[in-house]
Amino acid sequence: MANIRKQPRPKAETPKGFRDYFGAEVAQRTKMLRAIAEVYSLYGFDALESSAVETVEALGKFLPDVDRPNEGVFAWQEDEGDWLALRYDLTAPLARVFAQHRNDLPTPYRRYAMGPVWRNEKPGPGRFRQFYQCDADTVGSASMAADAEICAMLSDTLEAVGIERGDYIVRINNRKVLNGVMEVAGVLDPSDPDRFAHERGIVLRAIDKLDRLGLDGVRSLLGEGRKDNSGDFTKGAGLSSTQADIVMGFMQAHRGTGVATVARLNELVQGSNIGQHGVSELEQIADLLEAGGYGSDRIVIDPSVVRGLGYYTGPVYEAELTFDILDDKGRKRQFGSVAGGGRYDDLVKRFTGQEVPATGISIGVDRLLAALREKGRLHSVAHGPVVVTVMDRDRMADYQAMVAELRTAGIRAEVYLGNPKNFGNQLKYADKRNSPAAIIEGGDEKAAGMVQIKDLILGAKIAQSATLEEWKERPSQFEVPRDQMLAKLREILASHAADLETGQN
Amino acid sequence: MANIRKQPRPKAETPKGFRDYFGAEVAQRTKMLRAIAEVYSLYGFDALESSAVETVEALGKFLPDVDRPNEGVFAWQEDEGDWLALRYDLTAPLARVFAQHRNDLPTPYRRYAMGPVWRNEKPGPGRFRQFYQCDADTVGSASMAADAEICAMLSDTLEAVGIERGDYIVRINNRKVLNGVMEVAGVLDPSDPDRFAHERGIVLRAIDKLDRLGLDGVRSLLGEGRKDNSGDFTKGAGLSSTQADIVMGFMQAHRGTGVATVARLNELVQGSNIGQHGVSELEQIADLLEAGGYGSDRIVIDPSVVRGLGYYTGPVYEAELTFDILDDKGRKRQFGSVAGGGRYDDLVKRFTGQEVPATGISIGVDRLLAALREKGRLHSVAHGPVVVTVMDRDRMADYQAMVAELRTAGIRAEVYLGNPKNFGNQLKYADKRNSPAAIIEGGDEKAAGMVQIKDLILGAKIAQSATLEEWKERPSQFEVPRDQMLAKLREILASHAADLETGQN
Repeated sequence: MANIRKQPRPKAETPKGFRDYFGAEVAQRTKMLRAIAEVYSLYGFDALESSAVETVEALGKFLPDVDRPNEGVFAWQEDEGDWLALRYDLTAPLARVFAQHRNDLPTPYRRYAMGPVWRNEKPGPGRFRQFYQCDADTVGSASMAADAEICAMLSDTLEAVGIERGDYIVRINNRKVLNGVMEVAGVLDPSDPDRFAHERGIVLRAIDKLDRLGLDGVRSLLGEGRKDNSGDFTKGAGLSSTQADIVMGFMQAHRGTGVATVARLNELVQGSNIGQHGVSELEQIADLLEAGGYGSDRIVIDPSVVRGLGYYTGPVYEAELTFDILDDKGRKRQFGSVAGGGRYDDLVKRFTGQEVPATGISIGVDRLLAALREKGRLHSVAHGPVVVTVMDRDRMADYQAMVAELRTAGIRAEVYLGNPKNFGNQLKYADKRNSPAAIIEGGDEKAAGMVQIKDLILGAKIAQSATLEEWKERPSQFEVPRDQMLAKLREILASHAADLETGQN
Repeated sequence: MANIRKQPRPKAETPKGFRDYFGAEVAQRTKMLRAIAEVYSLYGFDALESSAVETVEALGKFLPDVDRPNEGVFAWQEDEGDWLALRYDLTAPLARVFAQHRNDLPTPYRRYAMGPVWRNEKPGPGRFRQFYQCDADTVGSASMAADAEICAMLSDTLEAVGIERGDYIVRINNRKVLNGVMEVAGVLDPSDPDRFAHERGIVLRAIDKLDRLGLDGVRSLLGEGRKDNSGDFTKGAGLSSTQADIVMGFMQAHRGTGVATVARLNELVQGSNIGQHGVSELEQIADLLEAGGYGSDRIVIDPSVVRGLGYYTGPVYEAELTFDILDDKGRKRQFGSVAGGGRYDDLVKRFTGQEVPATGISIGVDRLLAALREKGRLHSVAHGPVVVTVMDRDRMADYQAMVAELRTAGIRAEVYLGNPKNFGNQLKYADKRNSPAAIIEGGDEKAAGMVQIKDLILGAKIAQSATLEEWKERPSQFEVPRDQMLAKLREILASHAADLETGQN
């Protein structure tokens, strides 16, 4: 290692926009992924884990931010020529996997996938360049029953991870309806799909920003453009007032019931075949969901949902948490979107030339975890292992025997492995580990065949609030015969059962 | 999407050296990771998930293949200058994490981590550029009790994932003993550590190749060099015959008991301080393991273990599976190494300048899975969901109600979502899904309030082997009243309980 010492020291830092996850955070995420996988699997979806690395060619350019089509991925060139990149979502890899393995896969192919994805974007507060997604997709079915199933499953999944009914809503819309509205408004020409593509892109992104910009802001972007608070000007789609009215009417077509909303949409797309097709698809989904008992307390049709991605071709969905949280400045705001998806009938076709219908959702696991944390539904403090202290370093084998005994009984336990000289440091360590209890066996105890057990949870409670009398009445340290150590420890842990979250997977 | 059609079609291929994992493979790995995490956690280790991306600077150049120190990682440069790379193992990131967060972490810090790592190496058969590791390390403890604990935990972990005692062995050695032998042989000068570093590198790698090259091959590499079967010549360390004898003696120092091996090593390192220190460390580990009941059927001291990595500074460990498997050509061979590790006291120092002792292991999860598959300890065929067929596409809501009923009862189930016109395709689909049963409710059944249940596992068995009489006696299709569907299905699934591995997580 001598040559390393001569080099300047490297900085111990995660790259910008990346972070580390410790202990309980990892365990909570693992638990959530497992709960989601259980629902997906129950619905018949099969696990798929594709590689994190894809060819740039296979990934294609479908990043949400269509303003920068060439950016957004971490990419590098292989020695022999191919450009490789980290996947930016789990949908583009699925299209590649299905095209590559389609002869071996069942059709329709229901698959779920979970894992990190990477975006080469400017990081911001709470916005990281690596985050988890958890997707479920059905490839090879054109049936609206596939879309209805995905929405029902999304609803079941949110409840399975601890979001109560009433705290979330799944919204459904259909790109074809929007295209129908565009046609009626004169910015879509079915005989020349490329015409007005630029304008439609601006319209899509404008609608997608409704919750941030409000109706007036969207309206400005449909017309000439919009100056934001900083004074920056964003060019609009250049729609006339009449055209913009039609689009605005679409966004506000939501009515009290699915039937009423569908009827209103039907009016708006009169004269557009594609639009009427879209309305009929929405109707089929709504009927299936209603028959399945998924009422408007869980899933609604909402024309304001468009989803940013350019590749959606039919129904689009979004799951939003409806409860309020406090933002950085203490103001109430809605938590917002935690999952989204839709039908993308053209993604596999990129590879094979044949149309393969597909539909699916992606759950933003890290956002869901943040939401549950906000609502206090995750134990933020996980308890650590029982710590066996080292009073006599020559008797390490005795202490190892103690932890072995505890582990055999299923109790998480460890021996203190730092320098044992300063006993205070050992208790400080147990404290930092959030240990529920510490075991002490010094020379005197050993001679007497006894051990001391410190109840650290009770000790902390007493230290915070107890009077001297209480302290005397409820000692937090117990001396018991060595062969009763396990029994006494179990008694102590049981007395704190409500507080104990072991942090185990 | 019009502009995409004009481009040439992308190839639907994983990049070279990468692969996809489907269904049961993913579920089996998930299950194994969970089993490993449970043991690690029981031992008091805390989860850590660091980012997949690190700065090249933080990762350092510690790849196993020291012949190519600048290669082996996937790296790219950020727009603003930093070089980033995918982690090639979980140890280098741990050193960075500990250096970065050391004020917030307990010391000693026991952590486990699991996830993919990436190596930019030439792929080969069964050799991929992305694979899983599952590590446990203790940072901040110089005590040999930390090393003994890691070895005991490794042994417990292998048994927890299904490797029986007797089918594996954990071997322990110590780099200091090897350095002592080098000193005695005259290729290490404690007053000038850089001297002979090149020769020692060759010696290390030669010993590490013992199982491939045999004693004669290693001996050649210690001397002038070695010509392999293809005629290629590898230059050796240039040791004299006397020097080489000393090194060969070390490799063959393994005796029947730990005590005898330690005594033999003690003879070999006479006159070397570092060597004697190493022998004393091995003795401490052996004593602790013996006191813990880990006998030579599980853990042994074996001087032939050196581990390729340059950063080990003390004890090194390796877990090997001892059962035979058949290679590609049908020849018996040992399965070999599935885990390894050791003490690396200098890795954190790179960042902080202060020595931080650390020790740990890495389990090659994919190799372990391959081993269990070889031994037939993993169900290779996982059963899929119950498939509800679609006889009448207008009654999709009825079929959805059936699957909902099954799922509520915890039975994995799905509706057929392909084109329902050809019923044969639906049964072929159920077959491809490995479904245990299919449900059929056509117009006649509906009118009569009945459903048909096809027992597909029994059906397949009968098709393979039954006589006509057996076939008549044991029908594999049952008609039951609709309200008895669930009960009958449960009966069928229970009759196949031994065969059923649901593939669920």
